[in-house]
Amino acid sequence: MSLLNMGLIALLAGSVLALGYAMNRTRWVFKQPVQNERLKRISGYVSEGAMAFLTREFSVLLPFVAIVAVFLAVSNQGILRFQALSFVLGAGTSALAGFIGMKVATAANSRTTHAARTGINEALKVSFTGGSIMGMSVVGLAMFGILVILFVAGLFIEFSIEVFSEQILQIVSGFSLGASSMALFARVGGGIFTKAADVGADLVGKVEAGIPEDDHRNPATIADNVGDNVGDVAGMGADLFESYVGSIVGAMILGAASAGSELLRFRLSIFPLILAASGVLASLIGIRFVRIKKGRSPQKALNTGTFSAAAISALFTFVAAWFLLRGESFEFGGYIRIFIASVLGMVAGLSLGLLTEYYTGTGTRPVKQIVKACETGPATTLITGMGVGMASSFLPIVVIVIAIILGNLLAGLYGVAIAALGMLMTLGIQLAVDAYGPIADNAGGLAEMSEFPPEVREITDELDAVGNTTAAIGKGFAIGSAALTSIILFSAFQKQVGITLEDVSLLNPLVISGLLLGAVIPYLFSSLAMSAIGDAAFAMIEEVRRQFREKPGILQETEEPDYKRCVDISTTSALKKMMLPGIIAIVTPLLVGFLGGVNMLLGLLIGVTASGVVLAIFMANSGGAWDNAKKMIESGDSHGKGSEAHKAAVVGDTVGDPFKDTAGPSLNILIKVMAVVSLVIAPILKNLQ
Amino acid sequence: MSLLNMGLIALLAGSVLALGYAMNRTRWVFKQPVQNERLKRISGYVSEGAMAFLTREFSVLLPFVAIVAVFLAVSNQGILRFQALSFVLGAGTSALAGFIGMKVATAANSRTTHAARTGINEALKVSFTGGSIMGMSVVGLAMFGILVILFVAGLFIEFSIEVFSEQILQIVSGFSLGASSMALFARVGGGIFTKAADVGADLVGKVEAGIPEDDHRNPATIADNVGDNVGDVAGMGADLFESYVGSIVGAMILGAASAGSELLRFRLSIFPLILAASGVLASLIGIRFVRIKKGRSPQKALNTGTFSAAAISALFTFVAAWFLLRGESFEFGGYIRIFIASVLGMVAGLSLGLLTEYYTGTGTRPVKQIVKACETGPATTLITGMGVGMASSFLPIVVIVIAIILGNLLAGLYGVAIAALGMLMTLGIQLAVDAYGPIADNAGGLAEMSEFPPEVREITDELDAVGNTTAAIGKGFAIGSAALTSIILFSAFQKQVGITLEDVSLLNPLVISGLLLGAVIPYLFSSLAMSAIGDAAFAMIEEVRRQFREKPGILQETEEPDYKRCVDISTTSALKKMMLPGIIAIVTPLLVGFLGGVNMLLGLLIGVTASGVVLAIFMANSGGAWDNAKKMIESGDSHGKGSEAHKAAVVGDTVGDPFKDTAGPSLNILIKVMAVVSLVIAPILKNLQ
Repeated sequence: MSLLNMGLIALLAGSVLALGYAMNRTRWVFKQPVQNERLKRISGYVSEGAMAFLTREFSVLLPFVAIVAVFLAVSNQGILRFQALSFVLGAGTSALAGFIGMKVATAANSRTTHAARTGINEALKVSFTGGSIMGMSVVGLAMFGILVILFVAGLFIEFSIEVFSEQILQIVSGFSLGASSMALFARVGGGIFTKAADVGADLVGKVEAGIPEDDHRNPATIADNVGDNVGDVAGMGADLFESYVGSIVGAMILGAASAGSELLRFRLSIFPLILAASGVLASLIGIRFVRIKKGRSPQKALNTGTFSAAAISALFTFVAAWFLLRGESFEFGGYIRIFIASVLGMVAGLSLGLLTEYYTGTGTRPVKQIVKACETGPATTLITGMGVGMASSFLPIVVIVIAIILGNLLAGLYGVAIAALGMLMTLGIQLAVDAYGPIADNAGGLAEMSEFPPEVREITDELDAVGNTTAAIGKGFAIGSAALTSIILFSAFQKQVGITLEDVSLLNPLVISGLLLGAVIPYLFSSLAMSAIGDAAFAMIEEVRRQFREKPGILQETEEPDYKRCVDISTTSALKKMMLPGIIAIVTPLLVGFLGGVNMLLGLLIGVTASGVVLAIFMANSGGAWDNAKKMIESGDSHGKGSEAHKAAVVGDTVGDPFKDTAGPSLNILIKVMAVVSLVIAPILKNLQ
Repeated sequence: MSLLNMGLIALLAGSVLALGYAMNRTRWVFKQPVQNERLKRISGYVSEGAMAFLTREFSVLLPFVAIVAVFLAVSNQGILRFQALSFVLGAGTSALAGFIGMKVATAANSRTTHAARTGINEALKVSFTGGSIMGMSVVGLAMFGILVILFVAGLFIEFSIEVFSEQILQIVSGFSLGASSMALFARVGGGIFTKAADVGADLVGKVEAGIPEDDHRNPATIADNVGDNVGDVAGMGADLFESYVGSIVGAMILGAASAGSELLRFRLSIFPLILAASGVLASLIGIRFVRIKKGRSPQKALNTGTFSAAAISALFTFVAAWFLLRGESFEFGGYIRIFIASVLGMVAGLSLGLLTEYYTGTGTRPVKQIVKACETGPATTLITGMGVGMASSFLPIVVIVIAIILGNLLAGLYGVAIAALGMLMTLGIQLAVDAYGPIADNAGGLAEMSEFPPEVREITDELDAVGNTTAAIGKGFAIGSAALTSIILFSAFQKQVGITLEDVSLLNPLVISGLLLGAVIPYLFSSLAMSAIGDAAFAMIEEVRRQFREKPGILQETEEPDYKRCVDISTTSALKKMMLPGIIAIVTPLLVGFLGGVNMLLGLLIGVTASGVVLAIFMANSGGAWDNAKKMIESGDSHGKGSEAHKAAVVGDTVGDPFKDTAGPSLNILIKVMAVVSLVIAPILKNLQ
């Protein structure tokens, strides 16, 4: 069996398994009952709003996709023109993954609410299944897309390692760009949507009208709930979709560019596909372990699933490495080193997760410090929270640096790539755990709006809380993989553009200039995202006030608020405001590459990565820590709800929201998008030199 | 006349002029009257407290200086052992500059208060003269230090360009390290001192006891005033002292390392000394222009002085370049390019200053945006302010990048070095303008505490406000010169350590790792500085509360508060808390250099510079913008003092204080210290390779 066929079979098996599982489980979820009429109606609004947003988002992005596709078709030569199609495919599958995830999540929400009336285990089953469909669709579609490209390319081109590395993989990088750019818009747009609705709903509803959170009389409440789906579920899915694709593509390119025989380079390049397929299998097995027995805590069930999937995937990696690379003596040593590199990635990801949990988790020392600071008012709350966030970025960077150094010692840049892939191998189950929390949370919102008895909300709250630790670990994986992936893509770009070492020396003032410019881009980007939220929230506030004013019956429950208009406002502002940051991310590398040259572009990429990763961790962790400090106070610390400390904590949490839900996670994508854009234009830049 | 002698004469002339002026004017300031007894007593407390702080600070740092000196003496070989003495000299002159500045500032404060009773012009004269003494002492002592080293070295060593560049200049870099490390501790320590006292005084005095700001019944008020001197005057002086030394030393090293004949390299290396000396003369002429005629605004006087000094120094530079470099055809072209590079630096510095003014000045669009956000509470105030700060870092980086690229096009890295020197040539008058604002401000505090009629305070407030624009420009010069200087020192390190281009390629995972690690150091450092303020302020709050409790007569003015104890608390916490961030700055490059190697260290340096400059601009500008938003509200915008908007603005300002007065400016030094440390250990690292 030829190596390419082996890779194709792995991709086929992985995508069939993953998508088969997703389809089967989707049917199951939709079969679950939602009996309550009110719940049905309200969840219908949410689902409708979410779909409306997605549809409009995709239609807004259509011209963008068309322009980029035409650019790629025109500026490339020969077979590389296929990059345009590959790009469209990437954008399309990413959109499809978002679409499926959203459809399932909005269906799973209401069904979780319903199931929560029976018990926590039933609710866990529905919500976790919803999450796992999301996870498996993402993984399956990613593999399917790569499969299509490799298969079609195989029909047209005579294979050799040079052709494979310089043309086929370059075409695949178009797929990665499609996925990345969609992810960027989804994250930024979703982030703006959800925070605008959230802030708008809270400020007018809770503060001015004095009605509780998630009260159905608040016109913005549906928009808020839609936002949770749009931001947390679809945004996160798109984010990890592109990380997954990026790390596979990057590892393939670096494998093909390794030193060694043609056969070995081919093997190293196909190996990531085998890993991805084994990861699917391991995730599916792990998902089966998430079963709740009577008296066993849901937390335990989730942990068992996640950790067993990781252990199984490690085993698979060992077997795959032995099978494919045994006996090969390459630059760095034997297959065992490759295996160790992948375990290194897992350990690094886990450490990052635990660090996130330490700095942001309820009851940890840093969060308690913030709780204490809340007692002396909002100013100290903010200073302390930012101090915690800044301090929290140090150790994760050390972990990432150790992963890079060790990965490189084990097997050069390819080792680093395998470590990144090691983090994402079991993405199927990781994403299931990540997505399950928001589903449970939204189920709680629906329960509130449908005026279910408080026990239902308690159950969904407990589920949401249970997922927190596991979700923190997921966040760690997301950050770590973003950092490593962008370094891999960056290295892949260097290989593809064929630059000499001297050109990218730090002695070169152009490199230094690029680096400085790169370091400031994440700040510019975050600033745009944050001010977009401010503007959008303001529009929402105006609209909610208008409805309360013009329809006084809303508060007396004699009139129904116009939910749709609020959804519409969030949608419109999100779509309008996501364009500029998105375009900056995509256009900056083009401008720098064409005007400043390849060495300035390389400086830019590494600058954006270093500064972006640190800023992202700072923002995400400050936001997370403020959030949990508020939760701690709400559950009774420092005189509890309504105290001065609580007011300060609310300020901290509000500031933290755009940090952790919009700017922070968008930065993860920003750094990768800029690297992928560069990778895609590498052949054009090479021709210009 | 030999070139070295020419350099020595320039240094001698410059330092004699500068120090002569400073001595002469100091006598004049001390001759000015302070008649009011109460003013005398209170300003005595302040001056005593400031001196006590400085003395204790220096004695705490003595062991540190001794350890580093021993390390340098032991680990170096041959003539390079002189680096240890040079280091001690650097630390000593920096301390002396701080000491003089502080002594003069605390004397000028009270005399300005006194003069303000006569009129604004009299007050301007005293305060500006105080500032100019500070400026000239800094410049003069820096030149004097370099003079001593070059002179002594000239006695012992046979000169050649190799000896000059590899040994003499390496010894001079020890001087730079001495200045830098003192500056770092002075900035961090001073920053913690002033903010702890400020926050402590405000929170208990204004909020709890309900007495106005700067009321003499508040036990922390003297500490607050001492802090202003310690932080703003001494800290800033030390900061620019080291920038000045760093840019001169860096330019000398890069000149000596240029391509070309031995004679040319020598000339390029001596040229920065001629520039420095001409800058002194230009500053002195500029200072003479700061004369207030009846009916002319003080702002105009300051502008005239600053800009005419800049114009004159440009003229001098042209003459010096023509005289020394005319007819030489070197790598990049003729002397005119060197001249243009220095003008480029001035223009870049000016642009940076104007950008700072645009983003943080009273009444500008971004600040008005914050004022508007204040109306919807502290959360929006903070989000908007941070958004403004983040956005504000973009254009300054573009300016810096343009300066680097053009400087490099003009005359390679040497051109960049000359641009940096161009920014700092007229440091004498720049610092005079910078230091004059805090002197006027403190004079106002003294007027308040001594219960002078409100007209006096009005005059000092007006003076303080007048200096704002010019001070913003000064801040721009400080940031720009820090960025360029650290890049120059970084390049000088590369030259001295003799590394090949390939070793510092961005393809090297060690370089990337160093870069990531470097990017996070400024965050760690800022986090430590901010949490130090929290702790110190807490101790201060406890003490003030204790005094009010145990001495109830204080509020009735029957008992005098124990000012000294508050000064003591601020001193003790500042000295304790400044050590860790300072040591991190100094030890990190050592650890990375010795454990990770030269290439990882280079990655670290560039990472710390890129991330640190951006973070510093973000923090400084957010803080500045919040400060002025509060001032705008206090002068009547958004319902004025006491409104909800004002409360939100106060929160913003309090968060901004440690941003702009402690963490932000310390970062400017951090990036240079790490580069200088590396430069100093370059020969040791070279031997290890």
